[in-house]
Amino acid sequence: MDTFGRHIVCELSGCDMSSLVDVEKIRNTMVDAARVAKAEVREAVFHQFFPQGIAGVSGVVILSESHLAIHTWPERNYAAVDGYTCGLHTDPHAACEYIAKMLGATNWVMTFIERGIPNANGQYAHVVMSEHEALAQPA
Amino acid sequence: MDTFGRHIVCELSGCDMSSLVDVEKIRNTMVDAARVAKAEVREAVFHQFFPQGIAGVSGVVILSESHLAIHTWPERNYAAVDGYTCGLHTDPHAACEYIAKMLGATNWVMTFIERGIPNANGQYAHVVMSEHEALAQPA
Repeated sequence: MDTFGRHIVCELSGCDMSSLVDVEKIRNTMVDAARVAKAEVREAVFHQFFPQGIAGVSGVVILSESHLAIHTWPERNYAAVDGYTCGLHTDPHAACEYIAKMLGATNWVMTFIERGIPNANGQYAHVVMSEHEALAQPA
Repeated sequence: MDTFGRHIVCELSGCDMSSLVDVEKIRNTMVDAARVAKAEVREAVFHQFFPQGIAGVSGVVILSESHLAIHTWPERNYAAVDGYTCGLHTDPHAACEYIAKMLGATNWVMTFIERGIPNANGQYAHVVMSEHEALAQPA
């Protein structure tokens, strides 16, 4: 697998509280999102918290091509999502859009990071772009 | 747990190949890094790949305060690391520095993202900063 990958850091607002507390729905959504991204699932681990208030969920899907991650705050209708996939065959933006739709998000902020970019000295860097900049790039 | 968190996206170069193939060392390093960050480990899942070439490792530690993630490319002496922790009691930079040291990295690039920042409409955003900008902030 090449080192080059695209990592989308995503804040989802206005999500359905009932979705954000439902660990099985979150797990299914994240695993399905991996398929939407054309990535291969290797491991999936999800954890439900039981605070005094409303129970949020944290979880990660490890892919052959990196990972998808989510943390939910049901009482704020908010989820923090990461979609990081290597390989030009994958589409992390499609995964994040799918997750946003499945959780009923009404607003989101996405930043794209192109990771694992080598220079001539064998050192790796990344480049940060706004969603607008990233989607305006030629395919 | 408050929604506010700091996420460090980190490329580590010049790492020891022997460390990057050692799934038990990677697991121990990431779990110890969580303790260095003053975060609480909930789950730890690591996966070793067996390609035709040199075997890399992917893994995640789910924290009470979000997650730490790593993907390694031993043949490139490269690791992509994420350190994302919520709560002002945590120090994701200390975690990333610890991981870099344990893997023998000779060069790294870090970008800091402050996540889960609410506005008056209940919508959440993030702010991206270079390592220099982030560490120059008043404590």
